[in-house]
Amino acid sequence: MSAPQLSVFFFLQMFVILAACRLVGLLAKKMGQPQVVGEMIAGVLLGPSLIGHFFPEAQRQLFPPDSLKILYVGAQLGVGLYMFLVGVEFKTELFRDRIRGAAAVSVSGMVVPFILGSLLALWFVQIPGLFSEEATRPEAMLFLGAAMSITAFPMLARIIYERGLTGTSLGTLALAAGAIDDAAAWCVLAVVLASFGAGSAVAIKAILGGVLYGVIMLTIGRRLLASLGTAAEKEGRITPTLLGITLMLFTLACWFTDFIGIHAVFGGFILGVAMPRGLFARELQKQLEPFAVVFLLPMFFTYSGLNTRLDLVDSPKMFLIALVVLLAAILGKGIACWAAARMNGEDHRTAMAIGTLMNARGLMELIILNIGLQHGVIQPALFSVMVLMAIVTTLMASPVFEWVYGRHARAKGELQAVS
Amino acid sequence: MSAPQLSVFFFLQMFVILAACRLVGLLAKKMGQPQVVGEMIAGVLLGPSLIGHFFPEAQRQLFPPDSLKILYVGAQLGVGLYMFLVGVEFKTELFRDRIRGAAAVSVSGMVVPFILGSLLALWFVQIPGLFSEEATRPEAMLFLGAAMSITAFPMLARIIYERGLTGTSLGTLALAAGAIDDAAAWCVLAVVLASFGAGSAVAIKAILGGVLYGVIMLTIGRRLLASLGTAAEKEGRITPTLLGITLMLFTLACWFTDFIGIHAVFGGFILGVAMPRGLFARELQKQLEPFAVVFLLPMFFTYSGLNTRLDLVDSPKMFLIALVVLLAAILGKGIACWAAARMNGEDHRTAMAIGTLMNARGLMELIILNIGLQHGVIQPALFSVMVLMAIVTTLMASPVFEWVYGRHARAKGELQAVS
Repeated sequence: MSAPQLSVFFFLQMFVILAACRLVGLLAKKMGQPQVVGEMIAGVLLGPSLIGHFFPEAQRQLFPPDSLKILYVGAQLGVGLYMFLVGVEFKTELFRDRIRGAAAVSVSGMVVPFILGSLLALWFVQIPGLFSEEATRPEAMLFLGAAMSITAFPMLARIIYERGLTGTSLGTLALAAGAIDDAAAWCVLAVVLASFGAGSAVAIKAILGGVLYGVIMLTIGRRLLASLGTAAEKEGRITPTLLGITLMLFTLACWFTDFIGIHAVFGGFILGVAMPRGLFARELQKQLEPFAVVFLLPMFFTYSGLNTRLDLVDSPKMFLIALVVLLAAILGKGIACWAAARMNGEDHRTAMAIGTLMNARGLMELIILNIGLQHGVIQPALFSVMVLMAIVTTLMASPVFEWVYGRHARAKGELQAVS
Repeated sequence: MSAPQLSVFFFLQMFVILAACRLVGLLAKKMGQPQVVGEMIAGVLLGPSLIGHFFPEAQRQLFPPDSLKILYVGAQLGVGLYMFLVGVEFKTELFRDRIRGAAAVSVSGMVVPFILGSLLALWFVQIPGLFSEEATRPEAMLFLGAAMSITAFPMLARIIYERGLTGTSLGTLALAAGAIDDAAAWCVLAVVLASFGAGSAVAIKAILGGVLYGVIMLTIGRRLLASLGTAAEKEGRITPTLLGITLMLFTLACWFTDFIGIHAVFGGFILGVAMPRGLFARELQKQLEPFAVVFLLPMFFTYSGLNTRLDLVDSPKMFLIALVVLLAAILGKGIACWAAARMNGEDHRTAMAIGTLMNARGLMELIILNIGLQHGVIQPALFSVMVLMAIVTTLMASPVFEWVYGRHARAKGELQAVS
């Protein structure tokens, strides 16, 4: 396919993708679900699980192999920018203040699902078609452990913000715990990816490079980047030059982390955390978020959905596996966090709310799964089972939160009405 | 090259592209030139004319063939979005009020370069390596005529806005004349592209489809789109849903015009003109312009620059051709517009300023040239000569404007200081 043909295709694909995401997103909203849930599902529906199952010819014509590369690069850019903006919004001071209180919830919300995931991996490596043949037992255990302990941190942040819970005990606790969990899970993933490279030299490069990158960015980098903030305050806005420099740093960070063998999203996220706060952060959000979230991110959901084959979950055995994964996910994360919060002195309702919020996997799970699939750690069947788990736990979050916490808190006037 | 490899490459390429555009843009600014001039030149420098000439191996490694497709699609998206935003900013009422006054300037600024371009084409078709073998004489004449009569309308608008001339006689006249010129040139281009398709059925589809699209969008379309504006006023902003719908329409418009055989930029521009004004237009600019202009548009300049081979202008004959093209461009556009403005009763200085502004070709010329190259109307040598002309006429605009008009007007306090 020539470049001009690809570009014609691209516009048509994007129309279909944006339309599907908006339509399913609208339906999701009517059912009290956030937009992101709709887009996760829209991606799966555009893939072989629905459209490709009933209209295989149409699906092949709309997504020819050549065009998938464009979609992939756009998806990486979108998810990298999104994680960069999540980093820009990340409140390190919140994190510091609550680090002790959040530790209990976060550690149990990490250790329990990690152990459950690792144990499941021991079983799954014996079943053909789940893990790839190259994956060793420790790698499989680490990967599934990390994948189980991930939390939909940006989504959790959004729900807390939307419900006006940002300053409350519940909000701070859940946010801090979610952040710690995700940071730890990404570190484990980095180890898996590194060990999945061509030997220990590659692993050392990745781990050392990643740690060095993180430490330098959050110390010297942060101080150097502060001048961007000063420049923005002086101009009263982010000029095209400032935005250009910021995007240069962003592409460099993504390239560097990709290059040393960990993923571009790490590079983007850490750079975002190191960026100046205040006017600079607010203006950056305003200038980049709309296009990144509305146009680029749907490319990620679609690419992920095109790899999701729910038709592979077709035997009693696969149903059983899907069910066990789902139960392990909910038990390991939701119940463990609830228990930790209870033992930490929170009341029953608050503890349940924390468990519910931490249990949602959202976009983060899709990112980690796509990395695993793309690096050949897992195969399509396990990928699809895990996507199903991510969708169900994310779908659960809003209604269960409303049921265990929202309606009571709203009755007491502690919660903003959900718009 | 696999998709993940391409994505690593993409981040590195974008870093180099953004850095080159910012650096050369900064140098341009120091010399009183707008950013766009810097980016035009940066693109050429990244291509075979400089980097590729001195470091061919490095250039091949940075821009492997597979990655050019990604660059192309990104460039199309960028230029499509940019033209869409130019359409959103387009002031139809200004156009209507001044249509009579602008007619003289615009007609002479169109007819004279068109005739000169057509005459040159008669000469050029006899020289091998300029036009493609498939181009008939009328097609060559139409294409070069249209390419000569183009004006850097968005750049002209920007200079006028930056100098605070928007409401003045000079500003209104130049803007209206520039808009008429570009609209006419794009129509001629559409005819060339259509006739360059597979016969008259294709041509009719393109011309009829294009006219129908334009008429419907600017009548029924505009009325239907008004509801987007009402919704935005009600919300006080453009919600993600509204932005999603707008981008859906944008991709559909680009796809449709591409599909019927004219170019996506037409679809984007006309849709932009039909979009509601007021809060909606302002918010849309704020949400889309930064990323489109700072991140996506440099991809276009680079792709265009990669096709520009100034090394092909290496013989006395090619030098002569380049010089003749440049003289014809300046005479045909600048001098003709000056004469028309003088005859229309403008004083000498204003007439000179109008001629200077209309003479700049800017980004618009690159778009039309890239379309010609990509559809096989012209070959790399003529493409490169024309790019050279576009750069020189654009480079001339700011200093000549300052010299013939700016310094006098500023002395009289009629002009804002150039920041």
